[in-house]
Amino acid sequence: MDRNLTVAILGATGAVGQEFLRLFEARNFPVKRLILLASARSAGQTMTFRGAELEVQAVCEEAFEGVDLAFFSAGAERSRQYWPAAQKHDCVVIDNSSAFRMDLDVPLIVPEVNGDSLTSSARLIANPNCTAAILLMALSPLRKIAQFSRIIVSTYQSASGAGAAAMQELRDQTQDFLSGNPIQQKVMPHTYAFNLFSHNTPINEFGYNDEEWKVIAECRKMLDLPDLKINVTCIRVPILRAHSESVTVEFDGPAPSIEDVREVLNTSHGVRVVDDRANNHFPMPLDASGQDDVLVGRLRQDVSNPNAISMFISGDQLLKGAALTAVHLAEFVIATGWVGREVWV
Amino acid sequence: MDRNLTVAILGATGAVGQEFLRLFEARNFPVKRLILLASARSAGQTMTFRGAELEVQAVCEEAFEGVDLAFFSAGAERSRQYWPAAQKHDCVVIDNSSAFRMDLDVPLIVPEVNGDSLTSSARLIANPNCTAAILLMALSPLRKIAQFSRIIVSTYQSASGAGAAAMQELRDQTQDFLSGNPIQQKVMPHTYAFNLFSHNTPINEFGYNDEEWKVIAECRKMLDLPDLKINVTCIRVPILRAHSESVTVEFDGPAPSIEDVREVLNTSHGVRVVDDRANNHFPMPLDASGQDDVLVGRLRQDVSNPNAISMFISGDQLLKGAALTAVHLAEFVIATGWVGREVWV
Repeated sequence: MDRNLTVAILGATGAVGQEFLRLFEARNFPVKRLILLASARSAGQTMTFRGAELEVQAVCEEAFEGVDLAFFSAGAERSRQYWPAAQKHDCVVIDNSSAFRMDLDVPLIVPEVNGDSLTSSARLIANPNCTAAILLMALSPLRKIAQFSRIIVSTYQSASGAGAAAMQELRDQTQDFLSGNPIQQKVMPHTYAFNLFSHNTPINEFGYNDEEWKVIAECRKMLDLPDLKINVTCIRVPILRAHSESVTVEFDGPAPSIEDVREVLNTSHGVRVVDDRANNHFPMPLDASGQDDVLVGRLRQDVSNPNAISMFISGDQLLKGAALTAVHLAEFVIATGWVGREVWV
Repeated sequence: MDRNLTVAILGATGAVGQEFLRLFEARNFPVKRLILLASARSAGQTMTFRGAELEVQAVCEEAFEGVDLAFFSAGAERSRQYWPAAQKHDCVVIDNSSAFRMDLDVPLIVPEVNGDSLTSSARLIANPNCTAAILLMALSPLRKIAQFSRIIVSTYQSASGAGAAAMQELRDQTQDFLSGNPIQQKVMPHTYAFNLFSHNTPINEFGYNDEEWKVIAECRKMLDLPDLKINVTCIRVPILRAHSESVTVEFDGPAPSIEDVREVLNTSHGVRVVDDRANNHFPMPLDASGQDDVLVGRLRQDVSNPNAISMFISGDQLLKGAALTAVHLAEFVIATGWVGREVWV
């Protein structure tokens, strides 16, 4: 591809922002000019891109003038604030936040899952919650061999999902714990060192937290199954990077064989089966970190239900479900000349 | 109680062994003479009990002569090896290992769950797997208001379940990781610092590991429901102490109301409901560590099934499911004059 686009990253200094720069370099993304945007607090910092030092600018509405493509990764509030300016300047936005995901006229896309539903009219494309994206990377291929009737998920979510400050807090608290020093708590609501807790988002009237509710709603939208039965429990664990998920999938009728499940996952783009029973080697966040592929294993028939299977998944949430999915979406849009078609599988 | 018993601990120097000494002191357990037994490698170490230094002895068959009550906590192989000697010396054994749990003539007991099934003829009583014991502390009370039809569990298991050496390995690896030093791996099959992995036990032909298979079989035995449908995924997380479990329970017919579930748990011995939605405070391993009670929360109707509820549990596995359950069993046996009856609720 020619390096012909003016690209902006809103939230450049965050954990996901930094992954964008690495991915643009690694994938030879067609950037002619890169504009790094962040809050006024982070303005003036420099970041290295293709050997050059780029200065981070404070975001303002005029910053989107002349920008072809912007990646928004600075939270829902900033996305809502700056989408009108981007739209005014005819800038296509790929939004990592939850701001527009459930809007009926905004496509919510993981290319491998529902890329074929994207059309050329889309100027704002939402990138799903990382837990939902990682889950659907493993589940979506199964639709080729059977129909789900219910999904039950318990997550093991890393600090990276809460941003760079949470990752640092986990490191700092852990060091203080090991050194016998008092633990400082700034970002997370509970001690994070050698601890785990229910996801740090508010609980709704049904007893589910925001993260769980997002996963449920976004999976239904992306799979185009508005009545999908899905139960999610989101737990934050003291892992720096990569989310894991323990998943039971129930089908309409007898579950497909594990051989068929393994076969369909093995031939799916963006998925790697790690299911070595002899050596007790299954998906782990350390193995998934920095990997484009979502790892899937512990594949087995559910002993409690002949219509169900169970599996365990690990995926780098800074990549799949954040920076990598966003760059995939951009490449998808660029490659198709703004016309959606399947280019990944 | 009079301090009138000669008591032995086999495996005194291990993580669970150390808890026994603390519990004997805290609960004024009726020990007249305490004999600390371990492998020849640990013999000669001293441990403090009621202000006195006691020397650890190398275990041998003669060590059980004159012993009224022995706690076995040195693994299944040692339990199988020394039970005949204990039996010969008319010593009652409470066994923490998996050696005899599934033997038809050996009672497998958590006092609060199935203590009423214990009879005076029992000279060998098995203490269940800690994951099973913690799970049943939360599930067993629900039988008062409804009948389960299926249980789905994903665990978050701490280093303590693999013993003191695993706890030290987690500390050491984490310090090395934070200091940028190479990581040493001795006890666990995978890097443990800031990582998680499928439980480190062999996988059977059905794709389940030994730990999962134990939980399934032991829950069926303790609940006296040999056909109970139960699916378990056991995951080791980088937590030092206390296991957590994400649980979905399906019932025959509509699930009981969350109010009724909360009420029955609130009035159950050994359980504490921690379910503060407003402050996002639910069971956490740090809160459960060192606590006799199993913490239960995130109580909610399962949105994917009107016949199911979900919950999250944390329990100190060195206590509940290990040392505390064993001491409870001993107190139970002592208090009843070797005749089983309910004394806990």
